Amino acid sequence: MVENRIIKLINEAERIAILPHVSADGDALGSSLALAIALRTMDKVVTVYLEEEIPSIYSFLPGRESAQVYGEKPDKYELVLALDTGDLERLGRRIAIFEEADKTVNIDHHTTNTEFARLNLVKVSSSAVGEIIYQLIKMMGIALDKDMATCLYVAIATDTGGFRYSNTTPITHQISADLINNGVDVANISQLVFETTSLPKVKLMGKAIDNMELLENGKLAFIYITDEMLKSIGAVEEDCDGLVNIGRNIEGVEVSILIRQRGDDEYKINFRSKSYVDVSSIANRHSGGGHVRAAGCTVKGDINEIKNALIKEIREVL
Amino acid sequence: MVENRIIKLINEAERIAILPHVSADGDALGSSLALAIALRTMDKVVTVYLEEEIPSIYSFLPGRESAQVYGEKPDKYELVLALDTGDLERLGRRIAIFEEADKTVNIDHHTTNTEFARLNLVKVSSSAVGEIIYQLIKMMGIALDKDMATCLYVAIATDTGGFRYSNTTPITHQISADLINNGVDVANISQLVFETTSLPKVKLMGKAIDNMELLENGKLAFIYITDEMLKSIGAVEEDCDGLVNIGRNIEGVEVSILIRQRGDDEYKINFRSKSYVDVSSIANRHSGGGHVRAAGCTVKGDINEIKNALIKEIREVL
Repeated sequence: MVENRIIKLINEAERIAILPHVSADGDALGSSLALAIALRTMDKVVTVYLEEEIPSIYSFLPGRESAQVYGEKPDKYELVLALDTGDLERLGRRIAIFEEADKTVNIDHHTTNTEFARLNLVKVSSSAVGEIIYQLIKMMGIALDKDMATCLYVAIATDTGGFRYSNTTPITHQISADLINNGVDVANISQLVFETTSLPKVKLMGKAIDNMELLENGKLAFIYITDEMLKSIGAVEEDCDGLVNIGRNIEGVEVSILIRQRGDDEYKINFRSKSYVDVSSIANRHSGGGHVRAAGCTVKGDINEIKNALIKEIREVL
Repeated sequence: MVENRIIKLINEAERIAILPHVSADGDALGSSLALAIALRTMDKVVTVYLEEEIPSIYSFLPGRESAQVYGEKPDKYELVLALDTGDLERLGRRIAIFEEADKTVNIDHHTTNTEFARLNLVKVSSSAVGEIIYQLIKMMGIALDKDMATCLYVAIATDTGGFRYSNTTPITHQISADLINNGVDVANISQLVFETTSLPKVKLMGKAIDNMELLENGKLAFIYITDEMLKSIGAVEEDCDGLVNIGRNIEGVEVSILIRQRGDDEYKINFRSKSYVDVSSIANRHSGGGHVRAAGCTVKGDINEIKNALIKEIREVL
């Protein structure tokens, strides 16, 4: 069992580095910090190396004292664990730490994982790497505490969209039950992680709603976002994330399209569908790609022509 | 144990009526339908009597064939179970069924429950009545199926705000694990229950965001909704529910206030706070009430004077 071999490597090592993926999200950060806290109870010297600062939304996570943004190349580590990292590129500049280590471990749940380490624990049925780390901590006989539980809860809750995505399993809930038993403050963390929004993001939602068009008897929603809109309210590119869902979530809408104008004639297009339209096939026609219910492409040209072409293509499948 | 006495009454009865509270929500409906499905597997004659039609958001719930809106007074039932109902008033017109029954049972989780039935099972530590019904079904030795599991999952997920409120316990998650094991389609139900919005509601959110004012260095949010706004977009009163949270959820905001103008000089005011301001004490000063983090009042007079008075009162506690 690869878990036992990983635990043996951990037991034998003194200096251990943990590497979440670049642009670390709740699962990458929560899993890494939980593991760091756990390994410190075993008197290991543990550092979580990050590519960037911890996003402010996760600044409440315990265990941050074990984490630092990668700067100069540190001394060699005996053991390096990459967490939630599908391939080596997702380690960014920190690949230097990974490549210099004596022993390397890759713990992940992405189906696309390239098994790039000496030992690879890739469990695609796990909703989050947080689930895998929970099980490892249990197998190592380390007693969970509130800090570890909080980090693992954030990992699992964020990667399941708050227990809403299809990756949510009975195991996800069983583990969460145990984490809450160990002191997680569910209401407070949910407020911090799921309900807090920046002012520019809220204003951008307002703009998106105001200019949303419903076509084809309310089955098709178009949202249009320009550089000027972002500038006028101090919003940044990542504030556009999820805006396309405002249209998709409206009763009766099957396809929602977000057109993000960039510069003079380039448009980034996001597609979402609710239950039967395959938007990836539409994105494919415009040299894009994605999944059946979520896809995207980037096109150039006149926006009205682009829009009319899209309406025509979607009308055929609505 | 009162559970055993309730099970004995169920075993002895042939005709059973189940009564969720008026304006039945996800927990009241989900619990009632799950229990009806379970009792039908025991060949009982079971009817769920509703005060109103099932809201469209819950129209997907299994077991609706056991439910009907109360019309003429039905024949006498041997056993009537009131679910999620804090007091007799919450039965509305259906109190007639309750009062005529030979045996009555009250299954609830509200701290304010008045224990109005012959047998009362009030478990205030349960996040939802769905948890209590789950346990009863297990105790009766009935095998869960996908339909019961779906109803109970909706009951629990809605009453915990999607596992986000402080009433979410380890038991909540353990039960949810078992429900998912019995076939709940988590992603589909989450989409239907949590993510679907009506077009007027979305437009009203846009209006609320557009006219939101941030005062006191971004710590105080004001949202103003008028009759005309609702009319212009075809929104109804219940579309105002939750709008106050748009302000509360913004980073840095401590107090959010929704002013709902009604008629010429009446204003319904909703208060929310994030972490330290006691808004119930402010609502109390205006003959309102509520909780520390959520309160409300209704005032008459000039809106600018009202607003200035509120700003002054809140400034003192920010």
